[in-house]
Amino acid sequence: MLDYEKAFQTAVSAVKSEGRYRVFADLERISGRFPQARYHDGNSDPKEVTVWCSNDYLGMGQHPDVAQAMKTAIDQVGVGAGGTRNIAGTTHYHVRLEKELADLHNKEAALLFTSGYVGNEATLSTLGKLLPDCITLSDELNHASMIHGIRGGKGPKLIWRHNDLVHLESLLKDLPADKPKVIAFESVYSMDGDIAPIGRICDLADKYNAFTYLDEVHGVGLYGEKGGGVAQRDGVEHRVDVIEGTLGKAFGVMGGYIAGSSALIDAVRSYASSFIFTTALSPVLVAGALESVRTLKKSEDLRARHQERAARMKEVLSNAGFPVMPSVSHIVPVFVGDPVACKAVSDRLLTDHSMYVQPINYPTVPRGTERLRFTPTPLHTDAHIEQLVEALDVVWTDLQLKRAAA
Amino acid sequence: MLDYEKAFQTAVSAVKSEGRYRVFADLERISGRFPQARYHDGNSDPKEVTVWCSNDYLGMGQHPDVAQAMKTAIDQVGVGAGGTRNIAGTTHYHVRLEKELADLHNKEAALLFTSGYVGNEATLSTLGKLLPDCITLSDELNHASMIHGIRGGKGPKLIWRHNDLVHLESLLKDLPADKPKVIAFESVYSMDGDIAPIGRICDLADKYNAFTYLDEVHGVGLYGEKGGGVAQRDGVEHRVDVIEGTLGKAFGVMGGYIAGSSALIDAVRSYASSFIFTTALSPVLVAGALESVRTLKKSEDLRARHQERAARMKEVLSNAGFPVMPSVSHIVPVFVGDPVACKAVSDRLLTDHSMYVQPINYPTVPRGTERLRFTPTPLHTDAHIEQLVEALDVVWTDLQLKRAAA
Ligand SMILES: Cc1ncc(COP(=O)(O)O)c(C=O)c1O
Ligand SMILES: Cc1ncc(COP(=O)(O)O)c(C=O)c1O
Repeated sequence: MLDYEKAFQTAVSAVKSEGRYRVFADLERISGRFPQARYHDGNSDPKEVTVWCSNDYLGMGQHPDVAQAMKTAIDQVGVGAGGTRNIAGTTHYHVRLEKELADLHNKEAALLFTSGYVGNEATLSTLGKLLPDCITLSDELNHASMIHGIRGGKGPKLIWRHNDLVHLESLLKDLPADKPKVIAFESVYSMDGDIAPIGRICDLADKYNAFTYLDEVHGVGLYGEKGGGVAQRDGVEHRVDVIEGTLGKAFGVMGGYIAGSSALIDAVRSYASSFIFTTALSPVLVAGALESVRTLKKSEDLRARHQERAARMKEVLSNAGFPVMPSVSHIVPVFVGDPVACKAVSDRLLTDHSMYVQPINYPTVPRGTERLRFTPTPLHTDAHIEQLVEALDVVWTDLQLKRAAA
Repeated sequence: MLDYEKAFQTAVSAVKSEGRYRVFADLERISGRFPQARYHDGNSDPKEVTVWCSNDYLGMGQHPDVAQAMKTAIDQVGVGAGGTRNIAGTTHYHVRLEKELADLHNKEAALLFTSGYVGNEATLSTLGKLLPDCITLSDELNHASMIHGIRGGKGPKLIWRHNDLVHLESLLKDLPADKPKVIAFESVYSMDGDIAPIGRICDLADKYNAFTYLDEVHGVGLYGEKGGGVAQRDGVEHRVDVIEGTLGKAFGVMGGYIAGSSALIDAVRSYASSFIFTTALSPVLVAGALESVRTLKKSEDLRARHQERAARMKEVLSNAGFPVMPSVSHIVPVFVGDPVACKAVSDRLLTDHSMYVQPINYPTVPRGTERLRFTPTPLHTDAHIEQLVEALDVVWTDLQLKRAAA
């Protein structure tokens, strides 16, 4: 006799037995007091904690102009799109934001999706279908959403070693010259904080006539003179064929997009199932994102302060002997290397020190590389950083975790 | 020499040559004056139109309490979740809405997704992966998002003829008794307006020990004593294993969900890529949806008025000789049967009569069954209906389209 319930329980037990069962922290951020939030443990009264792992990297999720733009949209057009993009769901906000995003990346056109995840999944699978016999070359650390899209494209996939140009070229060299090739990669790899050599990947793309697809989800808003991302900072934006981004991290809201040539955008718009057959982004989100993108276009200072905070934090943590992983971005990962210990540090920080940082375990990172991932923002002060280091010091000693080699 | 741009242009040309290239109508709904909106044609000043094809079926997208709940959330916690559900993105609103949705469907638990599309895609693919050797039996008219999910599950798929119990049983009968089987179907098929025999499908599921997955995207909020959908109306909700719904249609906001047993929810939560690796729904949307679900739980009158409007409209259109397709729900499809004619009717209605109804062409419906799909709401008055019929009369005559047999 088949037992469906049992199959689900077994699947969950497997996760539990590896020590990587996820309990979602129930939070209520406190608008105006970023990075503070109220934490609900389900039993006692909520308590105030400092959030150390939000991807609202600049605190735009509480920006008064963004909030106001959303309230105005609620008053003017209501709370939802009421339909798919094709059937009553395109609003004037969508049209304007798509123009704004094309401009942000200096591309001909842009297209919105309900999330960055869907943007990757929809676009990469559509490329795989529209380019006959397409071969996708995927960085081995690409995000789950890109892998999902590449699989959906059905074409062959080759995996190149992370950020390894020699390996990438060795694969490209062996491919037939007349077959389409898509090189798919990210700018900032968000769990390690390293950054791809975008320009040199474009050199290889030129040499072998490949198409370049760049996930800038952790770069948009944060790098480049207009906040267009790392490719913009590096002056190579025009060499990348598709830039994919999110409205849910530095921009603080929710939603995703791609920017590229008009022909590409029109093709994805016309063929991608997960773009076509879904209710459009709420105009409320779109209005907020529009304001956020416009604000960050002129926020060089905020970007500079963000980098300064990350640099400061890496320095303080390293000086205190914590194993900070070698990040060259705003991400500050600290190595633990075990899922149970990683969760234990996080639990202690929350319970004893009112600080929230989520343990990062498999499948988000490879097994054996479990870590804490801190995301200091321009609103994390020196005092916040010092308190964190003091707390980590206590927890590290208590749990007898390894320090970095001096 | 490879030309990527050309490949995209060719793909778009193929769509154009079939007369089904989509031009999105750029609309601005006018809050407080549903179903009116401002239409931007890109050249002249926007003009006011009556919207006839929104899936905001009850006008909840402009409900003052829903709007207020969202503004309050903006003030209290800000505009975005700032992280995935596991990493800083679960808010107290998410926790409360998931409880509310479980209660709406009288199930143990519920899980939110960024959209109904993602809910189907994520859940069906995860079922396919977690149930060893799972075979999915899919109604032939299932939505693109369900097909996407079933494909992602990798297991074998059998397609049963639309709503055909005899065919479904003939397939089930031949399957090995010890293999898991998922029967995937919808309640209201939104392009035709017909409704599945849910109870009798559950009878077959019992007989052959299959698991039932029901998309109630076009049923939730609209049917059943609490607005739990058609399965609730039919008194068979407890016999359906998974109910999937959207927050973007009758509830007027955006987002999707499933409701089912705790074990199932926990398994999907722990394994589904497109649930795990994406920024959580904005708490603003969640707050709005929470208010909308609660409001509709006690809105029997609105549901009755909705059904009355649809019945009235079908009657008036039929009496005037238009080929209304045989719908038993709130959807009112009128047959055209050709993509170019279908678009022409829609264009005329918009240009000459200030009425917006999107032509429904392939791939949304099979080729040769192109149609107009009207969705009268409780806010469409008798006068609105009369104006529409008059306008259709002019357009039908001008374009020499077929009337129904008398
Ligand atoms: C590299 C990368 N790409 C895409 C996504 C998905 O973006 P979104 O959160 O908007 O779905 C994420 C994270 O969520 C990510 O880290
Ligand atoms: C039957 C059906 N299922 C799922 C969806 C997707 O729901 P959502 O719009 O919330 O993505 C739709 C329409 O968009 C639908 O018609």
